[in-house]
Amino acid sequence: METWLPTLMTQTPQAGYELAIKLSRMAVKLTQLDDEVRKKLRSTYAENADGLTLVAGVVARNFQTVAAANRYWRTET
Amino acid sequence: METWLPTLMTQTPQAGYELAIKLSRMAVKLTQLDDEVRKKLRSTYAENADGLTLVAGVVARNFQTVAAANRYWRTET
Amino acid sequence: METWLPTLMTQTPQAGYELAIKLSRMAVKLTQLDDEVRKKLRSTYAENADGLTLVAGVVARNFQTVAAANRYWRTET
Amino acid sequence: METWLPTLMTQTPQAGYELAIKLSRMAVKLTQLDDEVRKKLRSTYAENADGLTLVAGVVARNFQTVAAANRYWRTET
Amino acid sequence: METWLPTLMTQTPQAGYELAIKLSRMAVKLTQLDDEVRKKLRSTYAENADGLTLVAGVVARNFQTVAAANRYWRTET
Amino acid sequence: METWLPTLMTQTPQAGYELAIKLSRMAVKLTQLDDEVRKKLRSTYAENADGLTLVAGVVARNFQTVAAANRYWRTET
Repeated sequence: METWLPTLMTQTPQAGYELAIKLSRMAVKLTQLDDEVRKKLRSTYAENADGLTLVAGVVARNFQTVAAANRYWRTET
Repeated sequence: METWLPTLMTQTPQAGYELAIKLSRMAVKLTQLDDEVRKKLRSTYAENADGLTLVAGVVARNFQTVAAANRYWRTET
Repeated sequence: METWLPTLMTQTPQAGYELAIKLSRMAVKLTQLDDEVRKKLRSTYAENADGLTLVAGVVARNFQTVAAANRYWRTET
Repeated sequence: METWLPTLMTQTPQAGYELAIKLSRMAVKLTQLDDEVRKKLRSTYAENADGLTLVAGVVARNFQTVAAANRYWRTET
Repeated sequence: METWLPTLMTQTPQAGYELAIKLSRMAVKLTQLDDEVRKKLRSTYAENADGLTLVAGVVARNFQTVAAANRYWRTET
Repeated sequence: METWLPTLMTQTPQAGYELAIKLSRMAVKLTQLDDEVRKKLRSTYAENADGLTLVAGVVARNFQTVAAANRYWRTET
């Protein structure tokens, strides 16, 4: 498998948030390998209120990890 | 994409809580890009008891991150 | 908006637990602004076993934050 | 309200686990004040597989807090 | 009640994982005291995809606690 | 039982993510011992949107543990 996660470090909190989204999607990708099935399911959860909230919960958890890894991007003096 | 998360630092716990809400909403926004669909779904989960509790759970998780980033706004002497 | 979260510090663990409940409710309040709708939904989840367990899960998460903020109310010598 | 949570400190991990169960139940108690309703609901979730797993998840979260408060009951030399 | 949790310390990560499973099961056992009911429910969630995923989530949370208690079994030099 | 978790340490974040997936699957394997049943259930959750999101949530939690164990693979100078 090619390298898709070389580091948890990011320059900014926003880039860290985008990495958290990527981490959330990779779990799905590595569980359901079929691109077509994933694509079909995507339209399901993206149009379902609780489905979207569940996704937001996974992103929040991964963002906890990324933020801690980056020491919350604190700029201490 | 424009900058929407320049920092996790906030002046007060309450501002931190508002940032946690923003973080929770952005995951939904970045998953379901269609404004109209999100607007329609919003009325669904906001009028559903368990849907609202799930939302509160996501906010709680993001608030953990923001609070830790701000060292819980402790004012140590 | 008025100040409702001036600090995460509390005198006792029990007061911290009450703050965790307040934090959990504010997420709901800030998502569903209509008092009447919330009141109606409240009777729904408060009489539903899994709904109550979900609420307890949100409170537990917020209590983690409040307890960490207060260094677990340890009285070290 | 009377004092039900004077401290998060316990003598043993097992006593800490029992406190985690107490914390989980208090959230339910403080959300649904009616003893009769809670009693009725209890029979519902205690005989439902996913309901019990959800309860176990809440206990696990509270145990994280109690265990951290007690520095995991380590006996370091 | 007899002692079932004398310590969170384990010799290896794998023994820690087994303890996390034990912690997850004890919450269920202490909520549903009837052995027969638990046995019946077990066949329910063990043959249900989402039920098993929920169980895995509880184990993951308890493993976080056990792993942190053991300082992740790091062998630092 | 043979050794399947000798350590939480990995060389890279990506290897840590793969370990998080392994940890998530072992909880399922140790709860449902029958290979055939698991195989059947797998096709169920892998083709269900919310089921996949739940799986992603478990992986995220285990990744938190693995990442913390590896001090987030920081290379500090």
